[in-house]
Amino acid sequence: MTIHDFNRGPFPARVRIALAELGLQDKVRFVEVNLRTGAHKRPEFLAKNYSGTLPVLELADGAFIAECTAITEYLDHLGDRPRLTGTTARERGVIHMMNKRAEIEFLDPISVYFHHATPGLGPDVELYQNAEWGERMRDKALRGARYFDEVLSQRPNVAGETFSMADITVVAAFIFADIVKLTIPSHLGHLHAWHDRMSARPSVQGWRDMGRSDRNMPLET
Amino acid sequence: MTIHDFNRGPFPARVRIALAELGLQDKVRFVEVNLRTGAHKRPEFLAKNYSGTLPVLELADGAFIAECTAITEYLDHLGDRPRLTGTTARERGVIHMMNKRAEIEFLDPISVYFHHATPGLGPDVELYQNAEWGERMRDKALRGARYFDEVLSQRPNVAGETFSMADITVVAAFIFADIVKLTIPSHLGHLHAWHDRMSARPSVQGWRDMGRSDRNMPLET
Repeated sequence: MTIHDFNRGPFPARVRIALAELGLQDKVRFVEVNLRTGAHKRPEFLAKNYSGTLPVLELADGAFIAECTAITEYLDHLGDRPRLTGTTARERGVIHMMNKRAEIEFLDPISVYFHHATPGLGPDVELYQNAEWGERMRDKALRGARYFDEVLSQRPNVAGETFSMADITVVAAFIFADIVKLTIPSHLGHLHAWHDRMSARPSVQGWRDMGRSDRNMPLET
Repeated sequence: MTIHDFNRGPFPARVRIALAELGLQDKVRFVEVNLRTGAHKRPEFLAKNYSGTLPVLELADGAFIAECTAITEYLDHLGDRPRLTGTTARERGVIHMMNKRAEIEFLDPISVYFHHATPGLGPDVELYQNAEWGERMRDKALRGARYFDEVLSQRPNVAGETFSMADITVVAAFIFADIVKLTIPSHLGHLHAWHDRMSARPSVQGWRDMGRSDRNMPLET
């Protein structure tokens, strides 16, 4: 398998963490798509993924699977039983709900804030910006952080007792928040305690505070 | 099972069509949440679904599952084998990719257009509008329609040979387009031919041209 991505991106992180959790890192070859030069918006890449986002998984026969949740579903069903997306109907429903909620209430709004209310990937890539919308999305993300703090006051992981794809998506929100210097308020103690536990997982180590080491290279899909 | 929704909404349609495809209609009781009065934005409903969107599935033990894809995953795994979300890793990956793409490139932009660049659900519900953003999303949706026309020039269904959850999501985009009077260009022949085939399915009949019968009641999540 080949993954087209960019090493420091929060969305690529979702799939790289899933690969590590599933022990599949060695099955994959990575090809860099340079977000900073807008390579992901050029026709050659758009032929792989109409939406122009990273990462994209390329199968041995040349088929492409885009979208982090879809790639995670694919990878998670290569083995005997799913480990990130649930096994029962109820687990699958709850994990997909919390994963989508982590996207629409926390991770995606940070992405919109980055692209619309900050310089984002720079003027050559950010051809249209709507700053007012971007700022509203920043506020939405901070409300989302409060929501997940409440969730994590009641259960050890985002979708319940077990680590899942939904945890990875919230980890990605932390990665992106760090890159754009969006502070997750320190009084959200349940959320930060959960993040500390996540950061101790081998799959997540190395992503923490990644943004701090290279503040001039904000990156994502 | 109880489903909290609003009968004419495009997002509720996704789950109602899935229920019909799976033969589960008789297992469900429907409770109306009145979108036009903003009932979905009040604390009582937000306690069921933080995002304030319809539909929400309530299980017998009082647990809630929100988000159409998550509800579809739940329903599709109640039986012996999935019929809408794929069985192999590859089917699952492709269906989830095309389902998400149908959301972000076609259905969701129509929803944003409705809420931000039209009167939407009215001034008592639409407390913030960003018309410029809404109009860009209308244009994005029309590009999405062209993309799906191209996809359907090459395969009979959105995610390949077999009807899936991704088809239902594109059907929902047609339902919403009809409600907001957004014309899907007639020259997109592959897309319209596919939609004609979809509309002949018992699960979809009754949703077609629904908007036309009651133009004053635009509705969705």
